Amino acid sequence: MKRDAIGTPIARQTLIGQRVRKPDAPEKATGKTRYINDMVLPQMLTAKVLFAGRPHARIVRIATDAAEKLPGVHAVLTGKDAAGLKFGFSRDNVALKDKVRCEHDEVAAVAAETEEIARRALELIEVEYEDLPGVFSPEAGAREGAPLIHDNFPGNRSLHFEFKHGDLAAAEAASDFVADSVFRPHHVTHCCMGTSCAIADFDHKGKLTIWTQTQYPYNYKMDLAPALGMDPGDIRVIQPPVGGAFGSKLDVYPYEPIAALLAKKTGRPVKVTFTREEEFKASPTRQAAIIHMRTGCTCDGVLTFRTADVVLDNGAYTSWGPTIPVIMMRTTSGHYRVPVVDFKAQAIYTNNPYAGSFRGYGNVQTTYATAQQMDMLADMVDMDPLDFHLKNAQKSGEYTPQKSFLRECALAECLETAAKASDYSRKRREYAARRAEPGRYKKGIGLASSIHNAGGAKIHKSDGIGTILKVDDYARVTVITGASEIGQGIDAVVTLIVAEELGVPLEHVTIVNNDSDIAPWDVGVHASRTTFIAGNGTRRAARKAKAQILAAAGKMLGEAAETLELRGGFVVRDACGTPLIELERLLRRMHFQDEPELVMVTDYYEPKSEPEGAAHVSDHSAAYSHAVHVAEITVDTLTGEIKVDRITVAQDVGRIINRMGLEGQIEGGIAIGLGYALSENMRLVDGMLTNPSFRDYKLVTAPEMPPLELHFIETHCAEGPYGAKGISELPTIVIAPAIANALYNACGVRIFNPPMSPETVARAIHEARH
Amino acid sequence: MKRDAIGTPIARQTLIGQRVRKPDAPEKATGKTRYINDMVLPQMLTAKVLFAGRPHARIVRIATDAAEKLPGVHAVLTGKDAAGLKFGFSRDNVALKDKVRCEHDEVAAVAAETEEIARRALELIEVEYEDLPGVFSPEAGAREGAPLIHDNFPGNRSLHFEFKHGDLAAAEAASDFVADSVFRPHHVTHCCMGTSCAIADFDHKGKLTIWTQTQYPYNYKMDLAPALGMDPGDIRVIQPPVGGAFGSKLDVYPYEPIAALLAKKTGRPVKVTFTREEEFKASPTRQAAIIHMRTGCTCDGVLTFRTADVVLDNGAYTSWGPTIPVIMMRTTSGHYRVPVVDFKAQAIYTNNPYAGSFRGYGNVQTTYATAQQMDMLADMVDMDPLDFHLKNAQKSGEYTPQKSFLRECALAECLETAAKASDYSRKRREYAARRAEPGRYKKGIGLASSIHNAGGAKIHKSDGIGTILKVDDYARVTVITGASEIGQGIDAVVTLIVAEELGVPLEHVTIVNNDSDIAPWDVGVHASRTTFIAGNGTRRAARKAKAQILAAAGKMLGEAAETLELRGGFVVRDACGTPLIELERLLRRMHFQDEPELVMVTDYYEPKSEPEGAAHVSDHSAAYSHAVHVAEITVDTLTGEIKVDRITVAQDVGRIINRMGLEGQIEGGIAIGLGYALSENMRLVDGMLTNPSFRDYKLVTAPEMPPLELHFIETHCAEGPYGAKGISELPTIVIAPAIANALYNACGVRIFNPPMSPETVARAIHEARH
Repeated sequence: MKRDAIGTPIARQTLIGQRVRKPDAPEKATGKTRYINDMVLPQMLTAKVLFAGRPHARIVRIATDAAEKLPGVHAVLTGKDAAGLKFGFSRDNVALKDKVRCEHDEVAAVAAETEEIARRALELIEVEYEDLPGVFSPEAGAREGAPLIHDNFPGNRSLHFEFKHGDLAAAEAASDFVADSVFRPHHVTHCCMGTSCAIADFDHKGKLTIWTQTQYPYNYKMDLAPALGMDPGDIRVIQPPVGGAFGSKLDVYPYEPIAALLAKKTGRPVKVTFTREEEFKASPTRQAAIIHMRTGCTCDGVLTFRTADVVLDNGAYTSWGPTIPVIMMRTTSGHYRVPVVDFKAQAIYTNNPYAGSFRGYGNVQTTYATAQQMDMLADMVDMDPLDFHLKNAQKSGEYTPQKSFLRECALAECLETAAKASDYSRKRREYAARRAEPGRYKKGIGLASSIHNAGGAKIHKSDGIGTILKVDDYARVTVITGASEIGQGIDAVVTLIVAEELGVPLEHVTIVNNDSDIAPWDVGVHASRTTFIAGNGTRRAARKAKAQILAAAGKMLGEAAETLELRGGFVVRDACGTPLIELERLLRRMHFQDEPELVMVTDYYEPKSEPEGAAHVSDHSAAYSHAVHVAEITVDTLTGEIKVDRITVAQDVGRIINRMGLEGQIEGGIAIGLGYALSENMRLVDGMLTNPSFRDYKLVTAPEMPPLELHFIETHCAEGPYGAKGISELPTIVIAPAIANALYNACGVRIFNPPMSPETVARAIHEARH
Repeated sequence: MKRDAIGTPIARQTLIGQRVRKPDAPEKATGKTRYINDMVLPQMLTAKVLFAGRPHARIVRIATDAAEKLPGVHAVLTGKDAAGLKFGFSRDNVALKDKVRCEHDEVAAVAAETEEIARRALELIEVEYEDLPGVFSPEAGAREGAPLIHDNFPGNRSLHFEFKHGDLAAAEAASDFVADSVFRPHHVTHCCMGTSCAIADFDHKGKLTIWTQTQYPYNYKMDLAPALGMDPGDIRVIQPPVGGAFGSKLDVYPYEPIAALLAKKTGRPVKVTFTREEEFKASPTRQAAIIHMRTGCTCDGVLTFRTADVVLDNGAYTSWGPTIPVIMMRTTSGHYRVPVVDFKAQAIYTNNPYAGSFRGYGNVQTTYATAQQMDMLADMVDMDPLDFHLKNAQKSGEYTPQKSFLRECALAECLETAAKASDYSRKRREYAARRAEPGRYKKGIGLASSIHNAGGAKIHKSDGIGTILKVDDYARVTVITGASEIGQGIDAVVTLIVAEELGVPLEHVTIVNNDSDIAPWDVGVHASRTTFIAGNGTRRAARKAKAQILAAAGKMLGEAAETLELRGGFVVRDACGTPLIELERLLRRMHFQDEPELVMVTDYYEPKSEPEGAAHVSDHSAAYSHAVHVAEITVDTLTGEIKVDRITVAQDVGRIINRMGLEGQIEGGIAIGLGYALSENMRLVDGMLTNPSFRDYKLVTAPEMPPLELHFIETHCAEGPYGAKGISELPTIVIAPAIANALYNACGVRIFNPPMSPETVARAIHEARH
């Protein structure tokens, strides 16, 4: 941006779709980033929590005197200190318990000068328990006479959902084939590399600042406040860099109010950090469920109906996990053109760990069912699954029975692209033909797809975002945005969009976010919404700034503003690219004139989406998207081990904004989906987790990632920023049933109780053979 | 703000003029505040600077090998590492020197793991000097053949200023009396309780973040950039809480680029902190000068002319100190109605320490002269000084010869108020009459006044401020303001004004400032401007927010917006105070409606003031103000010790905003002025400071503060926020000559070379008697 560049035309170029590095990447790669777990505040105390370590019990007596007397201990809290401070989706949780309902129930907490002292203090707390009979499955919980987990929830009934559409009896009668199966998706957990951590501190006016990993800072205040008996307005939420979240931080969990209660009592900042074992035991899970699904079709392969009867293992408390039927029913009713739908779901309290939200949010479980039943039906009608899918695929402009409006629908294109790129049909026939041949290793190929919201979801009263944008005298841009960066890459997207609109280098954009006192409102990172919503908000704010700048330039230069553009750090003539004035010089002239004009704009963007409503009929997202995965695997029929050889992805992304970020999200999402499909499993025995470590709980890590071939379908979403859609959940959702279908292709077996671990697969193959 | 309060009318009340606690006070009083000096960043290195310790020398050789090899040392820099990176007002300074021009010249700097290692590394640096003959007074520096301090400043001439108005010869001829004296104001320093400190860190895109005590973050970037060879846009300035500034942080000083150069070289954050001794030696001073002043009057007490010939001891480099003639000439020309003026000033380089800006900025020195000459002339014409002052006092609507427009002038009212409250005239006669009586202790009373800008000063291209204000769903207000809090209390003022305008509790206002990437532009804390400028900016932003809120309320409630007001957390009918809707409920309704509306406003306020210009004729401040101090003292004629018994202050404050903050500023300002008058003195011997400690350099501390009686005159400044004027410098300016005049009243002696220390006063009394 040298002055002497004036005169050389600057060509029109776009950053949209380019590969842009995350601004936080170099600091993270070189160890400079200070994660919340690294943070130390002056005078900070360390807290430790005493967990019950048993699934269901009455607390007979609790003695904390010895702990309180230990030098260096500043406070010991027990259930009485949180009495009445109910919080959570059903107001059934409390920071410190007076009764034990699951293994990780918080019985006491200590704040001390050091972690070592806090640990020793925990050992000095005496608790006398009276164990109670437990409930370890939803079936058991629903049974007449089952032990009651919450006195005010008779029959252990938590939540229920229902949606019906069309004449089921008629549809059943018209069906030539029906796939009827019971799927039992399992408990997994997020396994964030940064364990749960919160730091709380009160100032002298009683205002709480909480440093937390939360993904939704604004509603978080509302959710945290009742756990502390506070006004939400008196809470400031700061989100330092976090080592993963994936939906696990979309609610308040007890360690957060515990930190705050201890900070209040001690008058000092208090930090709680989980060990890895605590993280496994005490952080939320993906919802386990029993899904009884039936899907019908005619003999010529037209879907006739789909029903799902879902029973969720609610666990001991109600976080967002049991609300996943909201999305489960969208998939049940909208995954392919299903004319008749009957969906019901109920959640039953158990003494198991409880679930929060998790990337894919119910759709991982449901697609595991729907996508396998599509494969089963294709088999029944003896069609190539690709043809069966294509026959039932919606087209642009269709509505689902719940009134999701598929304005731009690329399901068929995704199917054709992935199938063609992987040579799906030929391989599938070939592998199926070889199924009965002798040999230990069998190859299989499987195709699966799903639908997901791709423009947020109006679950809360607003799905919008606030943005404040200022441009300084050196043409450096600061964007104060409600969008939270939790590692997913939104800062890169915001940076790219500002650079695109204002013609400044990427390095000249600074993002200010993750502090609820500074940044304006946003509903948080979830529902594949952030690039869509914050992208729109950023673009609108940047365009307001541009309009102001070009108007001033036009006035100063005596040119019509609409003939001007910002490019390469200059105001240029749009048509020819001739630079007229350096942007930063213009900004200084605007600033240092008699009537100074600084560029500071604000915006609030609300997507065009409709609240879910009690009837569940609404266009609840501003966009929807599809993805198709083709998985190619080799099965060791002796050990049951599945090796994934290659994954071909075709996903409707609307339009690519940051290609590198998009690829990263797809890869990361598939890694989570692969773990879910193949190896991750919380092994619970009577509510107690038996494998709380990375030795016994197997994640898919980088060296185990198969080759991925990514195809991005650009449908140019009318409402999305530059046409983009949200993209981050589908990769996690689609891979498991693709592998399940490949397993069937290879060996003729299906696994209804994932994960498809070697043991489970080997048993299934053995049983099928004998 | 309970809902059931609906119905009970809420009376109109104002916070303007109330006593409001500084929001940062409790944290400071309880030790919770983390000052910059307390800050520790991850991986931070500590730097130490090697000072020359001699006033003028050539560096023959410098060897750093041994220091570099010391384990724990990460970088050693010398003059070659800063070669060519000139900075400062006259671009005559550099972070690390290749020639020594004053005792505290920075010869080398080290960054190491610990302070101890850095200290040891300094000891290992070998420097061979060739001492040069020095220049230790401006007279010596101006002399033909004097040693040259900077090769490119021949004759050691630094800056010069001139202003003439009217026919001096005619005025002299018309004068019956002329006071003609030479004043020699001395070197003092700011003595901030928090010593100089900076932390610098570069990110991976080469952007520098500097945590600093600076008072002017935005122009600071521009001033720091050349010292580093950087683009100012690549600098982020964060101002953590500081232990005092008082003008000492209105420029870049070498330790700041040194921290940045070391950070760049090491790739780690680097912190520099001065010891108290280093602070005395290496931080800026108040400008020492020689002021030859002449003031004439007629025999009936009408001023005829004033001339000042000022020679400033520039010191070794040019910071803002030598620019004080800009203000000196305003006082020379505008302190009382002076029809003819002849002002000239020049600054001469010496090998003494150099001056920055300091509260009172040249007016402390000049008022010490003007206010004593007024007393001398009153004596010559045998008038009560009060009458003499009143006779020459300007009235509202007058212009000074430099065209300062005294729109609201309360000089006469200040004089009368202070004189009456202290019984000045009677006591003065009585003490003068007792002067010749025997007795060791003599009482005296002295009156002095001054004029100062009270609405900022257009020294830079803009004297404005940017403000961003948002109101959240709980009616909590965040103000993102360019105004820096450096302990002076602006956060309390901003808070008060927001609460006043929006009818919310003070506790519900959060200020976000002191970070140049977040807050919008402001010219910094100086020239008694912040309450005036930021007060106006805040009020304008708050009023925009109010207009938006009341418009929305009017629409929702079906009322005319102009009949509504915000009071006590409610929208009320202005006339009767009847609450109509809780503000926070209204805000949520605005947010959660189909077309959401969030309250986020921006403002840039530029005062109506004119650039100084080369001719020095302009209305350079948006307001002017006067203060009168009456000092009552007891002089121990044996020891020369002056005990101040009482100070009566009358100051035109325009309108009181925060009474407690105002009182604090007046008290603090007088404490600094008292030290200047009585005890503080940098004792320089051949350019070397001989008293760099609080044992040998005597501050006035709390127990030594005399009783103060404060009278605030409210002139309701048309341009000021609610009528307020800036107030913070006059207290420091006026007290010394009031004491000097009291000393004359008590003993008949005048001190032309302050401070009026016991030794100086005793000598003067002795000489007068013998």
